Amino acid sequence: MRYWKDCWGVNSMYYARVFITLKKSIADPQGNAIKEALLSMKYDGVEDVRMGKLIELKLENPTREEAEENLKDMCEKLLANTVIEDYSYEILEV
Amino acid sequence: MRYWKDCWGVNSMYYARVFITLKKSIADPQGNAIKEALLSMKYDGVEDVRMGKLIELKLENPTREEAEENLKDMCEKLLANTVIEDYSYEILEV
Repeated sequence: MRYWKDCWGVNSMYYARVFITLKKSIADPQGNAIKEALLSMKYDGVEDVRMGKLIELKLENPTREEAEENLKDMCEKLLANTVIEDYSYEILEV
Repeated sequence: MRYWKDCWGVNSMYYARVFITLKKSIADPQGNAIKEALLSMKYDGVEDVRMGKLIELKLENPTREEAEENLKDMCEKLLANTVIEDYSYEILEV
């Protein structure tokens, strides 16, 4: 599907959030430290804490599909270390 | 509102995600470094990158309201540095 935007080279702005988390099998000492701190502050309900990264991006692309494709590529190549980390993302048009 | 769970001391499990981001007025050199790296990899659409933290928690609480109240408290007191950081969260029952 082509939009009139393509013809005129007008790009849309997208706001993307990438969530990077350690894989379940990887130990997370930082998360454990936070858990212990919370328990020592009497938040007894805390069962588990995992620490991850949040990357917010502003992307200028002609279409949402292209933005998503680029974003996935960036995650694989730079943002996430896929040996030990999982990633997910969400994209909003702004 | 009281549920039968309260009477029997049965707790529900909640999964919470806390998003911690630097306030807009605070410089983010880590985000800038990622942006420069992406631009050098020919992702020309990247306009801005901000780096934040993602904290995933498993909480055992009698009610969703209590879980949320506790979580907000944790953010204010430990998880976020509210002088330079903003936080938001979402809670799912599992």
